[in-house]
Amino acid sequence: MPEERIEELLEQRDFKQLKLELEDMYPVDLAEIMEELTDKQVVLIFRLLPKEEAAETFSYMNAEMRQVLIDALTDSELQEVMEEMYIDDTVDVLEEMPANVVDRLLLVTDEETRKQINMLLQYPDDSAGSIMNVEYIALRKEMTVAEAILKIRQVGINKETIYTCYVTEKRKLIGSVDVKDLLTTGENKVIEEIMETNPLFVRTLDDKEDVANTIHKYGLIAIPVLDQEMCMVGIVTVDDAMIVLQDEATEDMSVMAGVVPNEESYFGTSVWKHARNRFPWLLFLMLSATITGLILGHFEAALAVMPILNTFIPMLTGTGGNCGSQSSTLIIRGLTVGEIEFKDIFRVLFKEIRVALLVGLCLSMVNGVRVIIMYGDPLLAFAIGLTMIATILLSKTVGCVLPLVAKKCGLDPAIMAAPLITTLVDTGTILVYFAIVTRIFHI
Amino acid sequence: MPEERIEELLEQRDFKQLKLELEDMYPVDLAEIMEELTDKQVVLIFRLLPKEEAAETFSYMNAEMRQVLIDALTDSELQEVMEEMYIDDTVDVLEEMPANVVDRLLLVTDEETRKQINMLLQYPDDSAGSIMNVEYIALRKEMTVAEAILKIRQVGINKETIYTCYVTEKRKLIGSVDVKDLLTTGENKVIEEIMETNPLFVRTLDDKEDVANTIHKYGLIAIPVLDQEMCMVGIVTVDDAMIVLQDEATEDMSVMAGVVPNEESYFGTSVWKHARNRFPWLLFLMLSATITGLILGHFEAALAVMPILNTFIPMLTGTGGNCGSQSSTLIIRGLTVGEIEFKDIFRVLFKEIRVALLVGLCLSMVNGVRVIIMYGDPLLAFAIGLTMIATILLSKTVGCVLPLVAKKCGLDPAIMAAPLITTLVDTGTILVYFAIVTRIFHI
Repeated sequence: MPEERIEELLEQRDFKQLKLELEDMYPVDLAEIMEELTDKQVVLIFRLLPKEEAAETFSYMNAEMRQVLIDALTDSELQEVMEEMYIDDTVDVLEEMPANVVDRLLLVTDEETRKQINMLLQYPDDSAGSIMNVEYIALRKEMTVAEAILKIRQVGINKETIYTCYVTEKRKLIGSVDVKDLLTTGENKVIEEIMETNPLFVRTLDDKEDVANTIHKYGLIAIPVLDQEMCMVGIVTVDDAMIVLQDEATEDMSVMAGVVPNEESYFGTSVWKHARNRFPWLLFLMLSATITGLILGHFEAALAVMPILNTFIPMLTGTGGNCGSQSSTLIIRGLTVGEIEFKDIFRVLFKEIRVALLVGLCLSMVNGVRVIIMYGDPLLAFAIGLTMIATILLSKTVGCVLPLVAKKCGLDPAIMAAPLITTLVDTGTILVYFAIVTRIFHI
Repeated sequence: MPEERIEELLEQRDFKQLKLELEDMYPVDLAEIMEELTDKQVVLIFRLLPKEEAAETFSYMNAEMRQVLIDALTDSELQEVMEEMYIDDTVDVLEEMPANVVDRLLLVTDEETRKQINMLLQYPDDSAGSIMNVEYIALRKEMTVAEAILKIRQVGINKETIYTCYVTEKRKLIGSVDVKDLLTTGENKVIEEIMETNPLFVRTLDDKEDVANTIHKYGLIAIPVLDQEMCMVGIVTVDDAMIVLQDEATEDMSVMAGVVPNEESYFGTSVWKHARNRFPWLLFLMLSATITGLILGHFEAALAVMPILNTFIPMLTGTGGNCGSQSSTLIIRGLTVGEIEFKDIFRVLFKEIRVALLVGLCLSMVNGVRVIIMYGDPLLAFAIGLTMIATILLSKTVGCVLPLVAKKCGLDPAIMAAPLITTLVDTGTILVYFAIVTRIFHI
């Protein structure tokens, strides 16, 4: 149902029909549409939703809308929402709220849930613990398949995922069973016979991106999470892994473009916030480029003798910057998806140097032909070509080494991308260029 | 089991132990390790694997290794592999093989499978049809829950995913039932009562990236695929959606860095191929940057009067390039994840212009202070500041408009990223710069 239809029904005050049509909508779509409505309309619609759908819609809303609802709802209405939400979603909501709201929300949740929430809130932002779900199906190894299915029937309704069940013994994980296997084996078999005994798992403090990569690599629907004592405390599901990977790609791209990453969407970020996110890198890069300019000023005398030399600078620095960002981008992405590691540094270097020589030779030949045609000066063509090859070698080397070194030092490799590389390579290019031309032309 | 252990066992010719240990490995890990072994060892190990694991390992191998195996295996061995593979994996394998190998592989598959394979091979590369799985569980609406579970038991073993079953009537999709719901409702209920009647679906020719985004957005495990007659022909599963989204992010990053995208991994791509993928954009950008240089040459006279003007050029073009790539990156990503559409162009422009003014004012003030301190010339500081603001306005505008226009024209918005924007903005910056300084300083 599109936004217009909702507004129409609201205007006609046909709440009965509205309620009926709202029930057919997906919560994620509804949350999207509600962003366009007034606060009053949002509260009205929210109250029309069935409990379960209301809770799910709430979990898809942005922080601003949630605040509106929390202010408008009564404690008992809030309590219903909190009860229906999955605990991991609740934690996501709480993490974005100011302290007084968190207190109010925690007051309306029951003791048991509050304990679990508090535990989850303590995991670092980028850890497996912060994205895990504490609800899952635990089986015992002595159970028969029929008993296991019975258990799923009894407790499964509120679990976000039940398709992989975990076999535990004194809270230690000893195996896993897919529901697929339960459904397709004899009812009298014992779980121990059919369980996978070496299930993959992650730890609460593992980096959430590594967890998502593991789920992706092995094509899992969920992976168990163990705490420091190797006791099972939750699972991470594939839908959350997908969100992590998508957010990670977005974050990498932002950082690579010199923007401080931001959890909010493009339109959800204010102009001030956008400016604040973009300013630091621009300032840093502006000041570094100033140095390049000062170095250029240093060669004023040479430029005065041969003003034509100035015209090749944008092309040389541009090509260097582009070559460097090609290499750094491929390496950064390789690091993210886990294909490249620091130990591969020499393999990478060897590859990049050969690519640089090949590309450098071809480009400087094309450019040489142009220079000879335009200026009829083979020596000039040679000097520019030499600079070009040196620049490309330099930029490809810098472009592949810096992200690897950053990773090794525990920094985000993505900051070693186009903007920084371009600025570094600019300075290098100008130094190499004047070193070559002053020697060749004796200026 | 690490590679060393495998080589050790191979050397000792302890095949019994090797076979045992291989069974405990995940096919995806095994395929990775096999890349490091000799062809002979690969064939030997492959023959030791149980049928099912062999087929799965085969589906994770790179094209080169698959070719080695296909050459070494007998027809009946190949037949076994083909029988065990999921049809969508088979199609992926066949798409990468030369025609004569495809013929040989198709010869050893049975009639029914061959028909399905041929159908799948006909879908365009980027369509839902090309990544769908033709195996799924179809239920009838008159079935009881108990009958449905029985059906899953009987036919489910070879299905890649059985957690969502589809209710069809004369091949038309009329509903869906999660296995979760089957397990947690009364056995005597009829499917019609519990099925979701308006299931989400996609069409065979839908763009696979849109399909993956839909699965991501709604947190699905699988989505049904309907053909032109609205008959159900398959499903796309969440693991394939994840691959599509990850590949898409990698591809976008490559294109944004001016590299022709490539399905192979970094190390899996030869030096020649790497050079070929990077050369076209470098050549194009080098030639465009030449134009910038020629324009710069045009202002030789002005530079001769005030050589100091030259030293600000790297900073101005650099800042413009960085501002442009910030904007274009955010817009390109917004387009990919579906947050921004062409119709938002004025909203985007309005936002970017305000951000540009804010950022431009701050940067030009910082720079102005520096210029006054270093050169004691407020007029120079003013001229540079004015150019800076104009450049940032220009680059942010170009950076946000070009990707949107590219999308509208059916081009990949990712090509409108840093390298192209930088080159465009360089020319603009230099023209604006000299327009301003020649007027202010009357040169």
